[in-house]
Amino acid sequence: MQKSHEFKNYYAVIFTTVLNENPRGYESVAKQMETLAKQQPGYLGMDTARNTVGITVSYWKDLDSITNWKNNIEHKKAREKGRMEWYKHYHVRICKVEHEYDFNVISK
Amino acid sequence: MQKSHEFKNYYAVIFTTVLNENPRGYESVAKQMETLAKQQPGYLGMDTARNTVGITVSYWKDLDSITNWKNNIEHKKAREKGRMEWYKHYHVRICKVEHEYDFNVISK
Repeated sequence: MQKSHEFKNYYAVIFTTVLNENPRGYESVAKQMETLAKQQPGYLGMDTARNTVGITVSYWKDLDSITNWKNNIEHKKAREKGRMEWYKHYHVRICKVEHEYDFNVISK
Repeated sequence: MQKSHEFKNYYAVIFTTVLNENPRGYESVAKQMETLAKQQPGYLGMDTARNTVGITVSYWKDLDSITNWKNNIEHKKAREKGRMEWYKHYHVRICKVEHEYDFNVISK
């Protein structure tokens, strides 16, 4: 997310995961969940990367927006499937962004 | 980091980056900085992954620990080199971890 500094007192959800060796169907559902998250009220953006560990950080206007997304029925089904089939480990941290700054190269 | 739930009221620094196309010397200095961070007082752990975007989340006991690490002279030099040579973009978010939970598969 590039423009989060326009928002004040927002939240970050840090979701770190380790997948099983053959997480069949994971990529497709992960993409669906990304699309669905973007449609939720209070969604501000997302950063994601995966090597040994996968890290997805999503940004939200407030705690209510995070709770609403957690209670979304499709999201619940995906999490349940994840626990049954895809994840060896995951860790969720819900964090308040207190300070931030960024750096951008101006085109030369 | 696997055992952060043993700590209370700690902080996460979310560092997202986009590298230039040929960031010469970056990997080596990134590894040095990881080693150095682990030696700092208040360091609790780190998660890192990179695809198009790199995400490094480091965990700290309190804001003072983060400030100390920010003021470390080797770390300052590395950041300066990063701005001059390696990064197209970066964003730093300093966050208070308010809630967290995890999931682990018990070996069958």
